[in-house]
Amino acid sequence: MYKANITVTLRSSILDPQGKASEHALSQLGFDSISQVRIGKYVEMDIVAESLGDAREIAESACAKLLANSVMEDYHITLNEVVAA
Amino acid sequence: MYKANITVTLRSSILDPQGKASEHALSQLGFDSISQVRIGKYVEMDIVAESLGDAREIAESACAKLLANSVMEDYHITLNEVVAA
Repeated sequence: MYKANITVTLRSSILDPQGKASEHALSQLGFDSISQVRIGKYVEMDIVAESLGDAREIAESACAKLLANSVMEDYHITLNEVVAA
Repeated sequence: MYKANITVTLRSSILDPQGKASEHALSQLGFDSISQVRIGKYVEMDIVAESLGDAREIAESACAKLLANSVMEDYHITLNEVVAA
């Protein structure tokens, strides 16, 4: 079994109002050293697959079909094998 | 300067309806090998700080004060130094 950690972020050319709002709120709280705040989604899932390659294919397909909007968003998948005790 | 990558996830004891809905939708799409879907937030930011320790302190404080709800959520911070070219 594999654990997938997926981040889905808006493409850098797309405005991120949620990030801008957070950045503004942080600056109001005195965090002057923080900039370029961007907010995305984080998805964790367990994938049962024969191999790391199969697991990656399943995760890529799930991102392309449901989790990310490929017009506006990029995704990044990290997979870790979980060895049953 | 440091780039912070922060994931904010619901604590495992807290129900995650968004994750459940995604899991259900994935299963409807035929992804039978995916389970335990949980959805959180992903935050990227630039932090200007003297040291990695200072940057971590700023990021921790931003999470505690604004980005995460410490009653319901956990956060995990990864920091990378960016060397100006």
